[in-house]
Amino acid sequence: MNAPDATRPIGVFDSGVGGLTVLKALQAAMPHEHLVYLGDTARLPYGTKSPASIERYACQAAALLRQHDIKMLVVACNTASAVALDALREAMHPLPVIGVVDPGAAAAVAARPGGRHLVLATEATVCLGAYREAILGLDPGATVDELACELLVALAEEGWNEGPVAQDIVRRYLAELAEASRHPDSVILGCTHFPLLRPTFAAVFDDSVAIVDSAGTTAAAARELLRSLDLATEDGAGRLTLLATDGATRFARVGGQFLGHDLSWKDIEIVDL
Amino acid sequence: MNAPDATRPIGVFDSGVGGLTVLKALQAAMPHEHLVYLGDTARLPYGTKSPASIERYACQAAALLRQHDIKMLVVACNTASAVALDALREAMHPLPVIGVVDPGAAAAVAARPGGRHLVLATEATVCLGAYREAILGLDPGATVDELACELLVALAEEGWNEGPVAQDIVRRYLAELAEASRHPDSVILGCTHFPLLRPTFAAVFDDSVAIVDSAGTTAAAARELLRSLDLATEDGAGRLTLLATDGATRFARVGGQFLGHDLSWKDIEIVDL
Repeated sequence: MNAPDATRPIGVFDSGVGGLTVLKALQAAMPHEHLVYLGDTARLPYGTKSPASIERYACQAAALLRQHDIKMLVVACNTASAVALDALREAMHPLPVIGVVDPGAAAAVAARPGGRHLVLATEATVCLGAYREAILGLDPGATVDELACELLVALAEEGWNEGPVAQDIVRRYLAELAEASRHPDSVILGCTHFPLLRPTFAAVFDDSVAIVDSAGTTAAAARELLRSLDLATEDGAGRLTLLATDGATRFARVGGQFLGHDLSWKDIEIVDL
Repeated sequence: MNAPDATRPIGVFDSGVGGLTVLKALQAAMPHEHLVYLGDTARLPYGTKSPASIERYACQAAALLRQHDIKMLVVACNTASAVALDALREAMHPLPVIGVVDPGAAAAVAARPGGRHLVLATEATVCLGAYREAILGLDPGATVDELACELLVALAEEGWNEGPVAQDIVRRYLAELAEASRHPDSVILGCTHFPLLRPTFAAVFDDSVAIVDSAGTTAAAARELLRSLDLATEDGAGRLTLLATDGATRFARVGGQFLGHDLSWKDIEIVDL
Protein backbone atom coordinates (compact mmCIF):
# COMPACT_ATOMS: atom_id res chain seq x y z
CA MET A 1 0.00 0.00 0.00
CA ASN A 2 1.22 3.50 -0.70
CA ALA A 3 0.39 7.11 -0.03
CA PRO A 4 -2.75 7.51 -2.20
CA ASP A 5 -4.37 4.67 -0.24
CA ALA A 6 -4.35 6.86 2.84
CA THR A 7 -7.23 8.96 1.51
CA ARG A 8 -9.55 5.95 1.42
CA PRO A 9 -12.24 5.95 4.13
CA ILE A 10 -12.40 3.99 7.36
CA GLY A 11 -15.40 1.65 7.50
CA VAL A 12 -17.33 1.56 10.77
CA PHE A 13 -19.94 -1.10 11.37
CA ASP A 14 -22.58 -1.50 14.07
CA SER A 15 -25.88 -3.32 14.48
CA GLY A 16 -27.63 0.04 14.70
CA VAL A 17 -27.05 3.52 16.00
CA GLY A 18 -25.13 2.69 19.21
CA GLY A 19 -21.84 2.56 17.30
CA LEU A 20 -22.17 6.29 16.66
CA THR A 21 -20.56 6.73 20.11
CA VAL A 22 -17.48 5.05 18.61
CA LEU A 23 -17.80 7.05 15.39
CA LYS A 24 -17.79 10.26 17.42
CA ALA A 25 -14.57 9.19 19.16
CA LEU A 26 -13.00 8.30 15.79
CA GLN A 27 -13.88 11.75 14.44
CA ALA A 28 -12.34 13.40 17.50
CA ALA A 29 -9.16 11.32 17.29
CA MET A 30 -8.76 11.55 13.50
CA PRO A 31 -10.50 14.69 12.21
CA HIS A 32 -8.95 14.34 8.75
CA GLU A 33 -10.19 10.83 8.04
CA HIS A 34 -13.19 10.02 5.83
CA LEU A 35 -15.60 7.69 7.60
CA VAL A 36 -18.32 5.41 6.22
CA TYR A 37 -20.67 4.19 8.92
CA LEU A 38 -23.08 1.30 8.37
CA GLY A 39 -25.82 0.55 10.92
CA ASP A 40 -27.66 -2.73 10.29
CA THR A 41 -30.90 -1.27 11.65
CA ALA A 42 -33.05 -3.79 9.74
CA ARG A 43 -31.69 -6.64 11.84
CA LEU A 44 -30.87 -5.07 15.18
CA PRO A 45 -30.55 -5.96 17.97
CA TYR A 46 -27.69 -8.43 17.54
CA GLY A 47 -27.37 -8.97 21.29
CA THR A 48 -30.16 -11.54 21.53
CA LYS A 49 -29.36 -13.41 18.30
CA SER A 50 -27.43 -16.67 17.83
CA PRO A 51 -23.67 -16.58 17.13
CA ALA A 52 -24.19 -18.08 13.65
CA SER A 53 -26.64 -15.33 12.64
CA ILE A 54 -24.48 -12.58 14.12
CA GLU A 55 -21.44 -13.83 12.19
CA ARG A 56 -23.38 -14.03 8.92
CA TYR A 57 -24.86 -10.54 9.33
CA ALA A 58 -21.50 -9.02 10.29
CA CYS A 59 -19.76 -10.52 7.24
CA GLN A 60 -22.51 -9.22 4.92
CA ALA A 61 -22.14 -5.74 6.41
CA ALA A 62 -18.36 -5.85 6.06
CA ALA A 63 -18.66 -6.93 2.42
CA LEU A 64 -20.84 -3.91 1.69
CA LEU A 65 -18.35 -1.57 3.36
CA ARG A 66 -15.55 -3.06 1.27
CA GLN A 67 -17.40 -1.84 -1.82
CA HIS A 68 -16.71 1.67 -0.48
CA ASP A 69 -12.97 0.97 -0.84
CA ILE A 70 -12.28 1.22 2.89
CA LYS A 71 -8.73 0.99 4.22
CA MET A 72 -9.68 -0.39 7.65
CA LEU A 73 -12.78 -1.83 9.33
CA VAL A 74 -13.76 -0.79 12.85
CA VAL A 75 -16.36 -3.12 14.38
CA ALA A 76 -18.15 -0.67 16.68
CA CYS A 77 -20.65 -3.28 17.91
CA ASN A 78 -19.63 -5.11 21.08
CA THR A 79 -21.71 -8.16 20.22
CA ALA A 80 -20.23 -8.47 16.72
CA SER A 81 -16.74 -7.86 18.14
CA ALA A 82 -17.27 -10.61 20.71
CA VAL A 83 -18.78 -13.10 18.28
CA ALA A 84 -17.46 -12.44 14.78
CA LEU A 85 -14.04 -10.76 14.92
CA ASP A 86 -12.09 -13.81 13.72
CA ALA A 87 -14.55 -14.46 10.89
CA LEU A 88 -14.41 -10.79 9.85
CA ARG A 89 -10.60 -10.76 9.82
CA GLU A 90 -10.57 -13.83 7.62
CA ALA A 91 -13.23 -12.43 5.29
CA MET A 92 -11.60 -8.98 5.00
CA HIS A 93 -7.97 -10.08 4.74
CA PRO A 94 -5.62 -8.26 4.12
CA LEU A 95 -7.62 -5.24 5.39
CA PRO A 96 -6.99 -4.49 9.08
CA VAL A 97 -10.02 -5.11 11.31
CA ILE A 98 -10.34 -3.94 14.90
CA GLY A 99 -13.15 -4.49 17.39
CA VAL A 100 -14.15 -2.74 20.60
CA VAL A 101 -13.72 -5.56 23.12
CA ASP A 102 -9.91 -5.65 23.33
CA PRO A 103 -9.53 -1.85 23.59
CA GLY A 104 -12.28 -1.77 26.24
CA ALA A 105 -10.60 -4.52 28.25
CA ALA A 106 -7.26 -2.74 27.99
CA ALA A 107 -8.80 0.51 29.24
CA ALA A 108 -10.33 -1.24 32.25
CA VAL A 109 -7.09 -3.01 33.16
CA ALA A 110 -5.14 0.24 32.81
CA ALA A 111 -7.64 2.05 35.04
CA ARG A 112 -7.77 -0.61 37.79
CA PRO A 113 -4.87 -3.10 37.57
CA GLY A 114 -5.55 -6.24 39.61
CA GLY A 115 -9.07 -4.98 40.20
CA ARG A 116 -12.59 -6.33 40.16
CA HIS A 117 -14.32 -5.50 36.89
CA LEU A 118 -18.04 -5.58 36.20
CA VAL A 119 -18.94 -5.96 32.52
CA LEU A 120 -22.41 -4.73 31.55
CA ALA A 121 -23.30 -6.07 28.10
CA THR A 122 -25.83 -7.89 25.91
CA GLU A 123 -26.77 -11.54 26.35
CA ALA A 124 -24.65 -12.68 23.40
CA THR A 125 -21.54 -10.81 24.60
CA VAL A 126 -21.90 -12.17 28.14
CA CYS A 127 -22.57 -15.73 26.92
CA LEU A 128 -19.31 -15.75 25.01
CA GLY A 129 -17.27 -14.29 27.88
CA ALA A 130 -15.25 -12.18 25.44
CA TYR A 131 -14.47 -9.40 27.94
CA ARG A 132 -13.55 -11.92 30.65
CA GLU A 133 -11.09 -13.61 28.30
CA ALA A 134 -9.60 -10.30 27.12
CA ILE A 135 -9.19 -8.91 30.65
CA LEU A 136 -7.69 -12.07 32.14
CA GLY A 137 -5.36 -12.34 29.16
CA LEU A 138 -3.98 -8.88 30.01
CA ASP A 139 -4.17 -9.15 33.81
CA PRO A 140 -4.45 -12.69 35.25
CA GLY A 141 -4.85 -11.24 38.75
CA ALA A 142 -8.08 -9.43 37.84
CA THR A 143 -11.60 -10.51 38.84
CA VAL A 144 -14.35 -10.29 36.23
CA ASP A 145 -18.13 -10.36 36.68
CA GLU A 146 -20.46 -10.14 33.69
CA LEU A 147 -24.09 -9.09 33.66
CA ALA A 148 -26.50 -9.17 30.69
CA CYS A 149 -28.65 -6.00 30.72
CA GLU A 150 -30.84 -6.08 27.60
CA LEU A 151 -33.29 -3.55 28.98
CA LEU A 152 -30.61 -0.86 29.08
CA VAL A 153 -30.41 -1.00 25.28
CA ALA A 154 -34.11 -0.12 24.96
CA LEU A 155 -33.70 2.51 27.68
CA ALA A 156 -30.93 4.30 25.76
CA GLU A 157 -32.86 4.04 22.48
CA GLU A 158 -35.84 5.65 24.21
CA GLY A 159 -33.56 8.47 25.39
CA TRP A 160 -34.34 7.89 29.07
CA ASN A 161 -30.68 8.20 29.95
CA GLU A 162 -30.94 9.58 33.45
CA GLY A 163 -33.40 9.96 36.30
CA PRO A 164 -35.06 7.60 38.75
CA VAL A 165 -36.43 5.07 36.23
CA ALA A 166 -32.98 4.46 34.70
CA GLN A 167 -31.33 4.24 38.10
CA ASP A 168 -33.94 1.78 39.40
CA ILE A 169 -33.43 -0.47 36.38
CA VAL A 170 -29.65 -0.53 36.91
CA ARG A 171 -30.10 -1.26 40.63
CA ARG A 172 -32.54 -4.05 39.85
CA TYR A 173 -29.94 -5.66 37.56
CA LEU A 174 -27.23 -5.28 40.20
CA ALA A 175 -29.48 -7.07 42.70
CA GLU A 176 -28.97 -10.21 40.57
CA LEU A 177 -25.29 -10.24 41.53
CA ALA A 178 -23.60 -11.60 44.64
CA GLU A 179 -22.86 -8.90 47.22
CA ALA A 180 -19.10 -8.63 46.46
CA SER A 181 -19.77 -8.26 42.71
CA ARG A 182 -21.97 -5.23 43.35
CA HIS A 183 -18.90 -3.25 44.46
CA PRO A 184 -16.52 -3.36 41.51
CA ASP A 185 -13.42 -1.24 40.95
CA SER A 186 -14.39 -0.66 37.33
CA VAL A 187 -17.63 -0.89 35.37
CA ILE A 188 -17.13 -1.67 31.69
CA LEU A 189 -19.85 -0.36 29.37
CA GLY A 190 -19.76 -3.42 27.10
CA CYS A 191 -22.47 -2.25 24.71
CA THR A 192 -22.23 0.87 22.54
CA HIS A 193 -25.60 2.07 23.81
CA PHE A 194 -24.45 2.29 27.39
CA PRO A 195 -22.22 5.41 27.24
CA LEU A 196 -25.46 7.39 26.91
CA LEU A 197 -26.40 6.15 30.39
CA ARG A 198 -23.21 7.49 32.01
CA PRO A 199 -25.09 9.95 34.27
CA THR A 200 -27.10 7.01 35.58
CA PHE A 201 -24.05 4.82 36.25
CA ALA A 202 -22.35 7.78 37.94
CA ALA A 203 -25.37 8.13 40.24
CA VAL A 204 -25.62 4.40 41.04
CA PHE A 205 -21.94 3.60 41.65
CA ASP A 206 -19.52 5.15 44.15
CA ASP A 207 -17.25 7.94 42.93
CA SER A 208 -14.29 5.56 43.34
CA VAL A 209 -15.57 3.27 40.54
CA ALA A 210 -13.98 3.79 37.11
CA ILE A 211 -16.67 3.88 34.39
CA VAL A 212 -14.95 2.58 31.26
CA ASP A 213 -16.16 2.58 27.69
CA SER A 214 -14.46 1.38 24.53
CA ALA A 215 -15.02 4.39 22.31
CA GLY A 216 -11.95 6.44 23.21
CA THR A 217 -9.51 3.52 23.41
CA THR A 218 -10.83 1.99 20.20
CA ALA A 219 -10.31 5.29 18.40
CA ALA A 220 -6.79 5.56 19.80
CA ALA A 221 -6.03 1.97 18.73
CA ALA A 222 -7.40 2.64 15.24
CA ARG A 223 -5.24 5.77 14.90
CA GLU A 224 -2.09 3.93 15.96
CA LEU A 225 -2.80 1.08 13.60
CA LEU A 226 -3.28 3.42 10.63
CA ARG A 227 -0.07 5.29 11.46
CA SER A 228 1.88 2.06 11.79
CA LEU A 229 0.64 1.04 8.32
CA ASP A 230 1.40 4.51 6.90
CA LEU A 231 -2.29 4.85 6.03
CA ALA A 232 -3.21 7.89 8.15
CA THR A 233 -4.53 11.08 6.55
CA GLU A 234 -3.12 14.18 8.22
CA ASP A 235 -4.79 17.03 6.37
CA GLY A 236 -8.11 18.14 4.92
CA ALA A 237 -11.53 17.90 6.51
CA GLY A 238 -12.88 14.39 7.05
CA ARG A 239 -16.14 13.47 5.35
CA LEU A 240 -18.85 11.29 6.84
CA THR A 241 -21.19 8.92 5.00
CA LEU A 242 -24.02 7.35 7.00
CA LEU A 243 -25.59 4.13 5.72
CA ALA A 244 -28.38 2.09 7.32
CA THR A 245 -30.40 -0.96 6.32
CA ASP A 246 -33.75 0.41 7.49
CA GLY A 247 -35.59 3.37 8.97
CA ALA A 248 -33.81 6.63 8.05
CA THR A 249 -36.23 8.67 10.17
CA ARG A 250 -35.66 6.63 13.33
CA PHE A 251 -31.90 6.49 12.65
CA ALA A 252 -31.80 10.28 12.45
CA ARG A 253 -33.87 10.77 15.61
CA VAL A 254 -32.11 8.21 17.83
CA GLY A 255 -28.71 8.57 16.17
CA GLY A 256 -28.64 12.31 16.80
CA GLN A 257 -28.64 11.58 20.54
CA PHE A 258 -25.61 9.31 20.16
CA LEU A 259 -23.72 11.65 17.87
CA GLY A 260 -24.54 14.66 20.01
CA HIS A 261 -25.99 16.80 17.20
CA ASP A 262 -29.11 16.83 15.05
CA LEU A 263 -29.40 14.53 12.05
CA SER A 264 -31.99 14.61 9.26
CA TRP A 265 -33.32 11.48 7.56
CA LYS A 266 -31.86 12.95 4.37
CA ASP A 267 -28.38 12.48 5.87
CA ILE A 268 -28.83 8.68 5.86
CA GLU A 269 -28.62 6.47 2.79
CA ILE A 270 -30.64 3.25 2.98
CA VAL A 271 -28.82 0.18 1.63
CA ASP A 272 -29.81 -3.47 1.25
CA LEU A 273 -27.68 -6.31 2.61
CA MET B 1 -62.77 -26.96 -0.12
CA ASN B 2 -64.17 -30.08 1.48
CA ALA B 3 -64.02 -32.06 4.71
CA PRO B 4 -60.44 -33.42 4.53
CA ASP B 5 -59.17 -29.85 4.34
CA ALA B 6 -60.39 -29.30 7.88
CA THR B 7 -57.52 -31.34 9.32
CA ARG B 8 -54.94 -28.96 7.90
CA PRO B 9 -53.19 -26.75 10.46
CA ILE B 10 -53.77 -23.10 11.26
CA GLY B 11 -50.68 -20.96 10.64
CA VAL B 12 -49.83 -18.37 13.28
CA PHE B 13 -47.20 -15.73 12.61
CA ASP B 14 -45.47 -13.27 14.89
CA SER B 15 -42.25 -11.26 14.86
CA GLY B 16 -41.05 -13.27 17.86
CA VAL B 17 -42.44 -14.92 20.96
CA GLY B 18 -45.10 -12.35 21.93
CA GLY B 19 -47.63 -13.98 19.61
CA LEU B 20 -47.59 -17.04 21.86
CA THR B 21 -50.18 -15.17 23.96
CA VAL B 22 -52.46 -15.39 20.90
CA LEU B 23 -51.45 -19.01 20.27
CA LYS B 24 -52.45 -19.89 23.82
CA ALA B 25 -55.88 -18.33 23.27
CA LEU B 26 -56.26 -20.23 19.98
CA GLN B 27 -55.45 -23.51 21.74
CA ALA B 28 -58.02 -22.75 24.44
CA ALA B 29 -60.72 -21.82 21.91
CA MET B 30 -59.98 -24.66 19.47
CA PRO B 31 -58.33 -27.57 21.30
CA HIS B 32 -58.72 -29.92 18.31
CA GLU B 33 -56.89 -27.76 15.79
CA HIS B 34 -53.31 -28.34 14.69
CA LEU B 35 -51.26 -25.15 14.94
CA VAL B 36 -48.01 -24.15 13.25
CA TYR B 37 -46.44 -21.09 14.88
CA LEU B 38 -43.64 -19.12 13.24
CA GLY B 39 -41.72 -16.48 15.20
CA ASP B 40 -39.39 -14.35 13.06
CA THR B 41 -36.90 -14.05 15.91
CA ALA B 42 -34.00 -13.31 13.56
CA ARG B 43 -35.56 -10.00 12.55
CA LEU B 44 -37.52 -8.89 15.61
CA PRO B 45 -38.52 -6.37 16.72
CA TYR B 46 -40.80 -5.28 13.87
CA GLY B 47 -42.15 -2.34 15.89
CA THR B 48 -39.27 0.00 15.08
CA LYS B 49 -38.84 -1.00 11.42
CA SER B 50 -40.13 0.73 8.29
CA PRO B 51 -43.49 -0.29 6.78
CA ALA B 52 -41.79 -1.57 3.61
CA SER B 53 -39.52 -3.91 5.57
CA ILE B 54 -42.34 -5.12 7.80
CA GLU B 55 -44.48 -5.93 4.78
CA ARG B 56 -41.65 -7.82 3.06
CA TYR B 57 -40.81 -9.83 6.19
CA ALA B 58 -44.46 -10.67 6.87
CA CYS B 59 -45.00 -11.93 3.32
CA GLN B 60 -41.87 -14.11 3.51
CA ALA B 61 -43.08 -15.61 6.79
CA ALA B 62 -46.55 -16.26 5.38
CA ALA B 63 -45.06 -17.98 2.31
CA LEU B 64 -43.13 -20.34 4.58
CA LEU B 65 -46.26 -21.17 6.56
CA ARG B 66 -48.12 -21.90 3.33
CA GLN B 67 -45.59 -24.67 2.67
CA HIS B 68 -47.07 -26.33 5.79
CA ASP B 69 -50.43 -26.55 3.95
CA ILE B 70 -52.21 -24.23 6.38
CA LYS B 71 -55.95 -23.61 6.04
CA MET B 72 -55.90 -20.12 7.61
CA LEU B 73 -53.29 -17.53 8.64
CA VAL B 74 -53.54 -15.71 11.97
CA VAL B 75 -51.26 -12.66 12.13
CA ALA B 76 -50.55 -12.58 15.86
CA CYS B 77 -48.22 -9.57 15.60
CA ASN B 78 -49.91 -6.19 16.11
CA THR B 79 -47.30 -4.38 14.05
CA ALA B 80 -47.64 -6.77 11.09
CA SER B 81 -51.44 -6.65 11.41
CA ALA B 82 -51.36 -2.85 11.37
CA VAL B 83 -48.91 -2.57 8.47
CA ALA B 84 -49.19 -5.62 6.26
CA LEU B 85 -52.67 -7.18 6.50
CA ASP B 86 -53.79 -6.08 3.02
CA ALA B 87 -50.55 -7.27 1.44
CA LEU B 88 -50.82 -10.60 3.26
CA ARG B 89 -54.42 -11.14 2.13
CA GLU B 90 -53.41 -10.47 -1.44
CA ALA B 91 -50.38 -12.77 -1.22
CA MET B 92 -52.25 -15.62 0.50
CA HIS B 93 -55.48 -15.48 -1.52
CA PRO B 94 -57.74 -17.52 -1.35
CA LEU B 95 -56.61 -18.52 2.16
CA PRO B 96 -58.38 -16.57 4.92
CA VAL B 97 -56.09 -14.19 6.86
CA ILE B 98 -57.02 -12.49 10.14
CA GLY B 99 -55.02 -10.02 12.20
CA VAL B 100 -55.23 -8.92 15.82
CA VAL B 101 -56.04 -5.21 15.39
CA ASP B 102 -59.71 -5.49 14.33
CA PRO B 103 -60.62 -8.05 17.05
CA GLY B 104 -58.81 -5.92 19.66
CA ALA B 105 -60.65 -2.79 18.56
CA ALA B 106 -63.96 -4.67 18.63
CA ALA B 107 -63.27 -5.91 22.16
CA ALA B 108 -62.51 -2.38 23.39
CA VAL B 109 -65.64 -0.90 21.78
CA ALA B 110 -67.77 -3.69 23.25
CA ALA B 111 -66.29 -3.10 26.70
CA ARG B 112 -66.67 0.70 26.70
CA PRO B 113 -69.04 1.95 23.94
CA GLY B 114 -68.62 5.69 23.31
CA GLY B 115 -65.61 5.63 25.62
CA ARG B 116 -62.11 7.03 25.69
CA HIS B 117 -59.59 4.37 24.64
CA LEU B 118 -55.85 4.43 25.25
CA VAL B 119 -53.85 2.25 22.83
CA LEU B 120 -50.43 1.15 24.08
CA ALA B 121 -48.40 -0.19 21.15
CA THR B 122 -45.14 -0.12 19.20
CA GLU B 123 -43.91 2.91 17.25
CA ALA B 124 -44.92 1.40 13.88
CA THR B 125 -48.44 0.52 15.05
CA VAL B 126 -48.98 3.98 16.52
CA CYS B 127 -47.55 5.74 13.45
CA LEU B 128 -50.07 4.02 11.22
CA GLY B 129 -53.02 4.72 13.52
CA ALA B 130 -54.48 1.28 12.77
CA TYR B 131 -56.31 0.96 16.11
CA ARG B 132 -57.67 4.50 15.85
CA GLU B 133 -59.09 3.76 12.42
CA ALA B 134 -60.55 0.40 13.50
CA ILE B 135 -62.17 1.81 16.66
CA LEU B 136 -63.63 4.90 15.00
CA GLY B 137 -64.94 2.71 12.17
CA LEU B 138 -66.92 0.69 14.73
CA ASP B 139 -67.82 3.55 17.07
CA PRO B 140 -67.56 7.09 15.64
CA GLY B 141 -68.39 8.54 19.08
CA ALA B 142 -65.29 7.03 20.68
CA THR B 143 -62.14 8.95 21.64
CA VAL B 144 -58.78 7.32 20.89
CA ASP B 145 -55.33 8.15 22.25
CA GLU B 146 -52.25 6.22 21.14
CA LEU B 147 -48.93 5.91 22.94
CA ALA B 148 -45.77 4.20 21.65
CA CYS B 149 -44.14 2.26 24.50
CA GLU B 150 -41.11 0.43 23.05
CA LEU B 151 -39.50 -0.10 26.43
CA LEU B 152 -42.40 -2.28 27.58
CA VAL B 153 -41.45 -4.85 24.93
CA ALA B 154 -37.97 -5.24 26.42
CA LEU B 155 -39.48 -5.26 29.90
CA ALA B 156 -41.75 -8.20 29.09
CA GLU B 157 -38.93 -10.05 27.31
CA GLU B 158 -36.81 -9.64 30.44
CA GLY B 159 -39.66 -11.10 32.50
CA TRP B 160 -39.95 -8.02 34.73
CA ASN B 161 -43.72 -8.07 34.44
CA GLU B 162 -44.68 -6.58 37.79
CA GLY B 163 -43.23 -4.59 40.63
CA PRO B 164 -42.11 -0.99 41.08
CA VAL B 165 -39.75 -0.79 38.08
CA ALA B 166 -42.47 -1.85 35.64
CA GLN B 167 -45.02 0.48 37.23
CA ASP B 168 -42.63 3.43 37.15
CA ILE B 169 -41.95 2.87 33.45
CA VAL B 170 -45.67 2.81 32.63
CA ARG B 171 -46.26 5.97 34.72
CA ARG B 172 -43.37 7.70 32.97
CA TYR B 173 -44.96 6.93 29.59
CA LEU B 174 -48.36 8.14 30.78
CA ALA B 175 -46.76 11.42 31.85
CA GLU B 176 -46.22 12.12 28.11
CA LEU B 177 -49.99 12.34 27.65
CA ALA B 178 -52.34 15.25 28.25
CA GLU B 179 -54.15 15.04 31.59
CA ALA B 180 -57.49 13.83 30.15
CA SER B 181 -55.82 11.06 28.14
CA ARG B 182 -54.31 9.63 31.32
CA HIS B 183 -57.77 8.61 32.52
CA PRO B 184 -59.15 6.34 29.81
CA ASP B 185 -62.17 4.05 30.00
CA SER B 186 -60.24 1.25 28.31
CA VAL B 187 -56.56 0.47 27.84
CA ILE B 188 -55.85 -1.60 24.73
CA LEU B 189 -52.75 -3.79 24.93
CA GLY B 190 -51.79 -3.22 21.29
CA CYS B 191 -48.65 -5.36 21.31
CA THR B 192 -48.62 -9.10 22.00
CA HIS B 193 -45.95 -8.65 24.66
CA PHE B 194 -48.13 -6.47 26.82
CA PRO B 195 -50.58 -9.06 28.24
CA LEU B 196 -47.66 -10.28 30.36
CA LEU B 197 -47.65 -6.88 32.05
CA ARG B 198 -51.32 -7.09 33.09
CA PRO B 199 -50.51 -7.04 36.83
CA THR B 200 -48.63 -3.78 36.25
CA PHE B 201 -51.44 -2.15 34.27
CA ALA B 202 -53.91 -3.30 36.93
CA ALA B 203 -51.78 -1.56 39.57
CA VAL B 204 -51.33 1.66 37.59
CA PHE B 205 -54.90 2.19 36.33
CA ASP B 206 -58.13 2.55 38.34
CA ASP B 207 -60.25 -0.56 38.80
CA SER B 208 -62.87 1.02 36.55
CA VAL B 209 -60.57 0.85 33.51
CA ALA B 210 -61.12 -2.10 31.14
CA ILE B 211 -57.77 -3.71 30.21
CA VAL B 212 -58.32 -5.18 26.74
CA ASP B 213 -56.10 -7.51 24.76
CA SER B 214 -56.63 -9.06 21.35
CA ALA B 215 -55.79 -12.66 22.15
CA GLY B 216 -59.23 -13.89 23.26
CA THR B 217 -61.23 -11.99 20.65
CA THR B 218 -58.84 -12.95 17.86
CA ALA B 219 -59.20 -16.61 18.80
CA ALA B 220 -62.99 -16.29 18.86
CA ALA B 221 -62.95 -14.57 15.45
CA ALA B 222 -60.71 -17.30 14.04
CA ARG B 223 -63.04 -20.02 15.34
CA GLU B 224 -66.10 -18.37 13.82
CA LEU B 225 -64.37 -17.91 10.50
CA LEU B 226 -63.31 -21.57 10.32
CA ARG B 227 -66.82 -22.72 11.21
CA SER B 228 -68.37 -20.46 8.59
CA LEU B 229 -66.03 -21.99 5.99
CA ASP B 230 -66.76 -25.52 7.23
CA LEU B 231 -63.06 -25.91 7.98
CA ALA B 232 -63.18 -26.49 11.76
CA THR B 233 -61.85 -29.71 13.30
CA GLU B 234 -64.04 -30.91 16.13
CA ASP B 235 -62.27 -34.02 17.39
CA GLY B 236 -58.82 -35.39 18.20
CA ALA B 237 -56.04 -33.67 20.09
CA GLY B 238 -54.51 -30.64 18.41
CA ARG B 239 -50.79 -30.74 17.65
CA LEU B 240 -48.40 -27.81 17.91
CA THR B 241 -45.36 -27.11 15.75
CA LEU B 242 -43.08 -24.25 16.79
CA LEU B 243 -40.82 -22.64 14.19
CA ALA B 244 -38.40 -19.75 14.65
CA THR B 245 -35.84 -18.02 12.48
CA ASP B 246 -33.16 -17.78 15.18
CA GLY B 247 -32.23 -18.62 18.76
CA ALA B 248 -34.04 -21.79 19.90
CA THR B 249 -32.63 -21.45 23.42
CA ARG B 250 -33.86 -17.90 23.90
CA PHE B 251 -37.19 -18.73 22.24
CA ALA B 252 -37.70 -21.57 24.73
CA ARG B 253 -36.74 -19.48 27.75
CA VAL B 254 -38.75 -16.35 26.91
CA GLY B 255 -41.53 -18.19 25.06
CA GLY B 256 -42.23 -20.42 28.07
CA GLN B 257 -43.26 -17.28 30.00
CA PHE B 258 -45.73 -16.32 27.29
CA LEU B 259 -47.14 -19.81 26.84
CA GLY B 260 -47.35 -20.37 30.58
CA HIS B 261 -45.42 -23.67 30.63
CA ASP B 262 -41.82 -24.78 30.18
CA LEU B 263 -40.36 -25.17 26.69
CA SER B 264 -37.10 -26.83 25.67
CA TRP B 265 -34.95 -25.61 22.78
CA LYS B 266 -35.57 -29.05 21.27
CA ASP B 267 -39.25 -28.13 20.90
CA ILE B 268 -38.35 -25.38 18.42
CA GLU B 269 -37.37 -25.95 14.80
CA ILE B 270 -35.12 -23.30 13.29
CA VAL B 271 -36.06 -22.27 9.73
CA ASP B 272 -34.57 -19.81 7.25
CA LEU B 273 -36.63 -17.14 5.52
